[in-house]
Order: sequence, then structure tokens, then C-alpha cells
Amino acid sequence: MSQQIKLRAGNLLNNLRDTKPLVHHITNYVTVNDCANITLAIGASPIMADDMMEVESITAISSALVLNIGTLNQRTVETMLAAGKKANELNIPIVLDPVGTGASAFRNETVKSLLEQIQFSVIRGNMSEIRFIAGLHATTKGVDVSEADSAQDIQSSIEIAKTAAKQHHCVIAITGATDIVSDGNHTVCLENGHQMLSNITGTGCMCSSLIGSFCSMTDDYVTATTSGLLAMGIAGEIAFEKAGHLGTGSYRVSIIDEISMMNTETLQREAKVDETKN
Amino acid sequence: MSQQIKLRAGNLLNNLRDTKPLVHHITNYVTVNDCANITLAIGASPIMADDMMEVESITAISSALVLNIGTLNQRTVETMLAAGKKANELNIPIVLDPVGTGASAFRNETVKSLLEQIQFSVIRGNMSEIRFIAGLHATTKGVDVSEADSAQDIQSSIEIAKTAAKQHHCVIAITGATDIVSDGNHTVCLENGHQMLSNITGTGCMCSSLIGSFCSMTDDYVTATTSGLLAMGIAGEIAFEKAGHLGTGSYRVSIIDEISMMNTETLQREAKVDETKN
Amino acid sequence: MSQQIKLRAGNLLNNLRDTKPLVHHITNYVTVNDCANITLAIGASPIMADDMMEVESITAISSALVLNIGTLNQRTVETMLAAGKKANELNIPIVLDPVGTGASAFRNETVKSLLEQIQFSVIRGNMSEIRFIAGLHATTKGVDVSEADSAQDIQSSIEIAKTAAKQHHCVIAITGATDIVSDGNHTVCLENGHQMLSNITGTGCMCSSLIGSFCSMTDDYVTATTSGLLAMGIAGEIAFEKAGHLGTGSYRVSIIDEISMMNTETLQREAKVDETKN
Repeated sequence: MSQQIKLRAGNLLNNLRDTKPLVHHITNYVTVNDCANITLAIGASPIMADDMMEVESITAISSALVLNIGTLNQRTVETMLAAGKKANELNIPIVLDPVGTGASAFRNETVKSLLEQIQFSVIRGNMSEIRFIAGLHATTKGVDVSEADSAQDIQSSIEIAKTAAKQHHCVIAITGATDIVSDGNHTVCLENGHQMLSNITGTGCMCSSLIGSFCSMTDDYVTATTSGLLAMGIAGEIAFEKAGHLGTGSYRVSIIDEISMMNTETLQREAKVDETKN
Repeated sequence: MSQQIKLRAGNLLNNLRDTKPLVHHITNYVTVNDCANITLAIGASPIMADDMMEVESITAISSALVLNIGTLNQRTVETMLAAGKKANELNIPIVLDPVGTGASAFRNETVKSLLEQIQFSVIRGNMSEIRFIAGLHATTKGVDVSEADSAQDIQSSIEIAKTAAKQHHCVIAITGATDIVSDGNHTVCLENGHQMLSNITGTGCMCSSLIGSFCSMTDDYVTATTSGLLAMGIAGEIAFEKAGHLGTGSYRVSIIDEISMMNTETLQREAKVDETKN
Repeated sequence: MSQQIKLRAGNLLNNLRDTKPLVHHITNYVTVNDCANITLAIGASPIMADDMMEVESITAISSALVLNIGTLNQRTVETMLAAGKKANELNIPIVLDPVGTGASAFRNETVKSLLEQIQFSVIRGNMSEIRFIAGLHATTKGVDVSEADSAQDIQSSIEIAKTAAKQHHCVIAITGATDIVSDGNHTVCLENGHQMLSNITGTGCMCSSLIGSFCSMTDDYVTATTSGLLAMGIAGEIAFEKAGHLGTGSYRVSIIDEISMMNTETLQREAKVDETKN
């Protein structure tokens, strides 16, 4: 079965590169350039637009929508809601990246409001963020996962992903040392990636952009999410081999390189997928 | 004659590096860092300022103004108009980059309003964007040129550039496989560049920053525009030789490298300029 | 005595990497990604948040606050004041980077207002910016130091730093060919760095992020500031050796690399500190 999801991921990658779907982002100004470049590198076409005057039009011509609250402000809360409702109306998949949820009441309330008014396809976050999404107590350290939350064992992490997925009727992705993807029934654990990914800003945001890109190609969002996380994890491993010893600046450049060079063969050969734990 | 424009471009580059003119940008938050770094790399000094409280003052101390609507919002529409009017008043050259025009009514109406109220020196866009500027039917795919529009033959592309140039009394630059620069009477075709430039975000925006930098040195805007596009095209070719095989992350870094290392000799030796087609 | 400050800087670096303190930034959208990545590279954890709905909460959970006016707007003036007051209330150190002060009345008035209402720990700028802070006549060229101001001799520069430090009861850092750090009584001159640093955008902003990171570890702000500037200066020298010949794109990447690889041994061996001039 793990073999099948690898095959499907490889096919999705090929389709993505052939189709070059438009992926609308309303995202933060810290990592927005990385999100645009990684979206291009995987084969999709990014468009960033966040003004109320045009978000609905832009969503309407796009194949996926990514909402990222990294540098949330009152203006974009409104536009995220408008874009999300439009995407729901048109059955366009939506990825939520609840960056730093738990760090402020504003982020918490915005995420609650988004969850109430929009049906997401995928929500991707670290363990602190997803604990909040699941209605559990979460400690947070700004935009990074807290040590307490990241130390959680794999089985209880899977349970949290399943719970949140059932609550919100969507795919939940918890990224960390092991990435967990679940729709509540079907759960996938991924062992790719490298610790050094946490030493550069935006690797979470970039994962969400990759997931959004893959979601534009299929309504099997477990596979789409798995594909995005595999691409990032494998790129993180290869980039570490090539550039990790140089430092985090070179490592960041190399991650984009390896996403742009990713092909079906590499994806399928390097993927470490486990579907037996759930 | 093509030899003359190469000589003039080389002289402009030398003057630019000697003068380090200030170039005011009101631009998008996706590629703004690349625009700042490429402006520095070519020898100018970038300043990004977009608040109504200061745009006129900043324009007034600058040698060129670049308006880029990549992540347009209602606040910056107003400041673009104010800065543009100030630049016109002071005879400071203005470059318009109508990113994604055609993708939303908001962008279309903003561009119309800018064209009505401001006299631009240069408008640079892809074929979809310039078709819109010329009042022609344009298909668009977000911020990228549509396949239908990019497949247009070179002679009809030249006609569109000339038409738009006459309509708006400015230089029009259409960037693509062949770059076209025209003021309606004098037209230049450039064959430098590399396909891989379209795989990283912001190469169009960076062209506009380079054009703005060169426009600050002369009122011969055909030559200034040609100089900016030659620098980018040649950097794109050399960067491809050096870093293209590594991936798009390294390619992006290498483009800035090659702009910073660009000199008169390289510019004149590598330039592929054709002034006979029009 | 210079030996002692090197030892303290090395210890601070170790402590910083062990602690990973949260550093809240309200900063410009041009260099924000570089600020986030360099904050991670030195061992701290960046969080960028600028909406009134959350700045006080985010400051309250942070160990330092960095205010950078690079792309100032009316919305963030208010949030900078709110965050700054909260930081003062909680004794959280605050670094001010008065980017481009002197270039517009808006920047000048905002800086005056910040200085009146907030007690800063450190103010870092180029000579034009610090002359303004000291109430002296300053010429400015956008966000870069003017030639007239940068040509000032070292003894009069030290006097300006001391004067401004006494006026504002904080540490002043003037960065340039020689960096000067002073609290009015104790002054340190640093000879590290490389001219090429001025050819990429954001090296000043990145210095301020490094200073903010170090300030979160001690209330000896002269040493914290010295530590941040040493890290940047030494990284700039090593990066020049490794990547300077490639161009400014590679140089920028290499600076982040060298900050991420910086250790106590390199910092102490390469530091060029002079405490005798004052």
C-alpha cells in the first residue's frame, strides 16, 4: 500500500509539471518569496494577491488557494474569509497554514473564525499549532513548536491528527521529525526530512505551498499532502548532503534547487512512507 | 546602428556605476528584496517607500521611480498616483510594471487610472500585459503570459509594441523569448535571455528595476530600456551556464551575481541586438 | 580589556545558541526574510508581527524587540509605539533601526516620537542616521549614508556616538568602515567587516537583528551590541574570501552561512576590537 501512494505521488508530480496550475496565496511577507519560488520549482504558477478588491476574482481563476497567517493583519483576515468562501463555492481546494496559532489571542480567534466559516481541504502545522486546531492545550514558542509538544510520542500524535481531521472534515498534516498525514480514517507517516530544515525560516510555509500545488491536481488530498511533504522532506535530505556543511544560507538555496530538480524516480526511490502505524 | 546602441548601453552602465542614483520603488512584497538587490548590483541605490506621508518627498529626492502592481492594494494605488504625479512635475522618469494586468478588474482599472493620470517613460510587461495596455483582447494566466499570447509572431508583436507606444507616448518593452523595445518610431529586438528565467519569480520585476536604474541616467529611454534588458538577458545566459544545472535556487543567486559583475565589455560582446526588423 | 569583551561576546554566543530566545521584529518588507534567517542563523527564534491586535501579546512573550522603520507606514507607527511601551513595561530590551531617517519628514517625526515615548536599549544606524538622532545636521541619500557624513574622522564620530548615547540614555552603534559602540562612558571601536557589505540590501537591518538577539541574553548592552556587530563583520570578511569573487548574490548567501557557522573560537580569533580610542 505504501508502494501505491508513492506511485500516485510520482504521477501527481508529472501531472503538475505538465499542467502548471495557478495557486493563489494570501500569505505572510516574511517567506512569500520562498513560497513563490518553491511553487514555481515544483511546476505550478504562484499568484499572491490580498486586496479585497480582487481576492475573489483571483481565487476564481486559480486551481488552489493557500491561506497562511504568518504575519496576520486585520485587513487580510477579511480577505482570507472572502477568498476562502469563494473557493468553497467553486470547489477549489484550500490549504490552511495556521502559523503561530497559540502565540496570540488574535491568531487564535482568527483561526477559529476561519475554521467556522471555511471548509478546508488540508490544514498543515507543527504539533503546537495542530494541538490548538484539535482543541487541546498547546504550548507555543512564537512560530516554532514548543519542546513539550514536539516531544510527544508518535502514537498520540497520530491520535491528535485523526481527531482534528474528524473535527474539521479535512486532511491534517503535522510536520516534525515524523510527518503525519491523516483524514481521520487513512493515516500516513513520513520519515523524510532533516533537522536542519528548522534552522531556516519558511520551510513550513513552503510545505503548505507544495501541498496547495499538489491539491490542485486531485481530490485525493491525503495523497496530495503526502506528495508535497515527500518533495520537501527528500529535497531537505539531498540539500543537506550537498550544502548542509556550508551553512543555512546555502542550504536554503539548495532546497529550492532540489525541488526544481525533483522527478518521479527520485521521489519514489527516496520516499520513506509508513501506512501501518495507524 | 545596432553597434551604436551597444556602445551607448556600455557608456550608460559606466555612468550608472559612477553615479549611484537613487531609484524609488513602490512595488510588491513578493520580489521586493530581489528588486533592491538587483538595483544595487547594477550600481544604483534602491529606496522602497509606499506610505502617503512620504512618497512625494522620497520621489522628489530620487532619480527614477518604478511602479509595480504585483501585490496591488487600495492603499498603494493612491500612493502610486501621488508619487507618479510628483515625478511628472519634476521630470523624473517613471517605469510602470503592470504585473498581472488582465487577471482582475481591480488591476485593469488601476492601470487605466495610472495611464490616464501619469505620463510614463517606459512600460514593461509580458505580451498579455502589453496587449491589455494596447487596448487589445488579452488572455492571462495570473502573473504569467498566456500560451496564446506568447505564441504570437514577432512582426505582429512589434506592431503591438509600436501601437501601445504611440497611444501612451512612451517606450514599450515586451519581454519574452525575444524582447521588443519601441517608442513607436524606433524599435529594437533583443535575443538575449534564457527560458529558465521564467522558472523563478521576479525576473520581470527585476528587469523593471534595471530599466528604472538606466532611465535615471539619460532621457533616451529606448537605449535605457535596451540597456536594462540586455543586462538581464546576458546575466540570464551566463548564470545558466554557471548554475542552471544546479536548479532554480542557485540560478536566482547567480543572476544577481552576474548583474553585479556585468561590465561594458561583457555587455557589448554578448548583446544580440537587431534594429532591422521594424 | 579588549580581550575581556571578546571573551564575553563568545560566552554570549554560546548562551544564545543554548537558549534560542524569541526576538520580536516590527520591520520592513524588503529585508524581513534576511532578518528572520540571520536571527535563526545566530541561534535565536524570530517572530514578525505588526498588527495592533497582537503586537503587545507577542512582545510580552519575547526576549527582545527590534523596531526597524525601513518601509514605515502609518499603521506600523502605531504598533511600534504600542510594542515599545509594552517592552519598556516588562523590561524587555529594544533595538531601534532608524532606516533612512533624514530622507523624509515622516521618518524624522516618527523617530522623534519613538524617542520621546520609548526608552531604547540600543540604536543602530549609519552616520547620517545617527547624526539625526544626535540632533545634528545630517545629509542623507535615501537609506544609504551620504558621502559627506561617512567621510567624518573617527574621533568626531566617537564624539557623536557619545553625545547621542547620553542624550537618549542608551547604547549607540554607528556602523561603517569602523563600527563605533558607545553608552556615553564606555566606547568600543570595531574594525571588522568588508566594503562589499554595502553592495547588498539589508546588512544594516541584519546587524540590528543580531544585536536584538544578543540583547536578549544580557543587560550589558555594550557587549551585546559589540557581539552582534562582530558576528556580522567577521561573517562579512569570511564570506568575502569564499564568495566575494562570485558576485553579490553569492556573497549574500555566504553571509548567512558564516553567521550560522560562527562559533566562539572564530569570533574571538577574528575580532578586531579597540577600546583605547575613547
